[in-house]
Amino acid sequence: MREVRIKTSKNHSDYITSGNSSLGLLLETYKIKKCFVITDDIVYELHKNYLEIFKNKLIGIKVIRNGELSKNLDDVMDIYQELIKSEANRKTHIIALGGGVVGDLAGFAAATFMRGLPLVHIPTTLMSQCDSSIGGKNGFNFKNYKNIIGTFHQPDFIYSDVNFLKTLNDREYKNGIAEVIKYGLTCDINLFHFLEENRRGIVEREVDKLLYIVNECARIKGSIIEKDEYDRGLRNILNFGHTIGHGIESSAGFSLSHGEAVALGMKAEAFIAVRSGYFEEKYYNRAMNLIRDFGLPQSLKNVDTREVIEYMKRDKKNTTNNVKFVLPDKIGHAIITTEIKQNLIAEAMEELTRR
Amino acid sequence: MREVRIKTSKNHSDYITSGNSSLGLLLETYKIKKCFVITDDIVYELHKNYLEIFKNKLIGIKVIRNGELSKNLDDVMDIYQELIKSEANRKTHIIALGGGVVGDLAGFAAATFMRGLPLVHIPTTLMSQCDSSIGGKNGFNFKNYKNIIGTFHQPDFIYSDVNFLKTLNDREYKNGIAEVIKYGLTCDINLFHFLEENRRGIVEREVDKLLYIVNECARIKGSIIEKDEYDRGLRNILNFGHTIGHGIESSAGFSLSHGEAVALGMKAEAFIAVRSGYFEEKYYNRAMNLIRDFGLPQSLKNVDTREVIEYMKRDKKNTTNNVKFVLPDKIGHAIITTEIKQNLIAEAMEELTRR
Repeated sequence: MREVRIKTSKNHSDYITSGNSSLGLLLETYKIKKCFVITDDIVYELHKNYLEIFKNKLIGIKVIRNGELSKNLDDVMDIYQELIKSEANRKTHIIALGGGVVGDLAGFAAATFMRGLPLVHIPTTLMSQCDSSIGGKNGFNFKNYKNIIGTFHQPDFIYSDVNFLKTLNDREYKNGIAEVIKYGLTCDINLFHFLEENRRGIVEREVDKLLYIVNECARIKGSIIEKDEYDRGLRNILNFGHTIGHGIESSAGFSLSHGEAVALGMKAEAFIAVRSGYFEEKYYNRAMNLIRDFGLPQSLKNVDTREVIEYMKRDKKNTTNNVKFVLPDKIGHAIITTEIKQNLIAEAMEELTRR
Repeated sequence: MREVRIKTSKNHSDYITSGNSSLGLLLETYKIKKCFVITDDIVYELHKNYLEIFKNKLIGIKVIRNGELSKNLDDVMDIYQELIKSEANRKTHIIALGGGVVGDLAGFAAATFMRGLPLVHIPTTLMSQCDSSIGGKNGFNFKNYKNIIGTFHQPDFIYSDVNFLKTLNDREYKNGIAEVIKYGLTCDINLFHFLEENRRGIVEREVDKLLYIVNECARIKGSIIEKDEYDRGLRNILNFGHTIGHGIESSAGFSLSHGEAVALGMKAEAFIAVRSGYFEEKYYNRAMNLIRDFGLPQSLKNVDTREVIEYMKRDKKNTTNNVKFVLPDKIGHAIITTEIKQNLIAEAMEELTRR
């Protein structure tokens, strides 16, 4: 078991990675008395035995449908109703067992039911283990606006069992790889090198490789969260690949996976970094090789540039008319700028349609 | 202008009372650029000129129907939609202009839209100036459960202009008096004496009397919030009269005003305090005289004791089977106990039906 302690407004959140199930022990350590589990149908089908660990602590369970479409107000209301039915109270821990969507919905319900129940994340996807479960963000989509409603609600702890990752399908696994590449490219050169040197072991999901990357991502993200819990500035760095990526994802009507959209976003934004003179072309090529080597897409058949730019401008991170970009200036480091001209963005989008 | 500074997780919230409008100045002091006002139809009708102070800072306004029935998810959704339409972003200040319901809804919208917009409370009722606008609680009713969904979201500042109080109807004004009596009886003997000695001036809403009680309540509540922002224990003290009061209010289907229910709750709970040996009868009599002198009710025609107790048990503050009671042990001080037997609660309810 490895542990990263993240200091936040709520004392701290512990991030615990493990290759052998130690959840039962953690429930005792954290003195958890009653649990309400939120999960999705796919995770439930694969891992329902996992629920046995909770034994008589389990007062209820809500199984949502897998996928982004569940991230809406109706599902939040369903969770509220189940919580009432199960007689949940402020001492009930909400357990988010699943990927990013489960974490987002469970986190929001925990933040708002009775003005806040304690929360535990048990992320089951690489994306949620490396990224979305850390930092306390939650939310849901409303009227076609992604994550427009949400709060910050820090979990008591996050328990990442890397064995879950072996049951992911290939596309879901790559979703997470895109985020890991993001951390390497913008925050940590050692992680970037590790990805370059251990491609095969990572693709084959070897436990020691998984433990390393999951723990490194928690450490990197944790240190950023500690400095900027409420997303006032520094935390923007995590948005690399997501500025254009979210635009592409929204414009594609969610036919692309999040990781695919982020991979395309990283390519377009790294392209902008090169053209703006921030990033050397040789680094760009190494980054693109990594994206390609892990089987993530580098091109789109067609893209409505104008629509993507419209979505980008609506993004809640943009408080002025200028879109904020995170651009790598070397491997393992990035800068933030709002000075990117629209025609360069359009050019970068164009680059995505070339093979 | 008087000011109370309340230190919370969000640096601090300032509580400013005034007898002459100084909002324009405050908007400059706090560097507020864009505002979205949430108010209700009655406040809007009476005070729409007030909105002129915001000038070109105002990007939108949402007027809800006055009353507790608006405190539901549909109204929250309407606010979200208007915020989107007005192109609100994270630099937009939400201004809650109104009483407790407006403050609760606006606070929740501010807490959850784009994961948190800055908030300013401009409470217009005595109840909201003395109590509900302070402390960051917000929420709405869901499936007949009062305030079951909500968060904590501290305002940047609270601006209480006591001139608003002159336009309140008598019943609404008394709503606030019930809360002021609560503060005097459980937290501050000087405030209690002030109420005893200045009944006429308070009933006639003299500005200096209003300024005094509003500011004292902010000081008292502020000092409790500083020690227990997230309602983990100490803040329970504010619940005097509300344990049975909420039960009565729910059971009566909201035909009683909040202040009327709280006055009845205070009577029943003070009765329990006397019977349990915590509170002397002479103090009880003085408290009852005060409640009566301000025209608040001391009896109910009929009451379904069993139903009231059921509602009390469901209250989100009760994490075990035992209901938590705040009981005065002298004037200006109270204790918290979960040791009250059900038959004594029933007896106190019975007392309410006697004239």
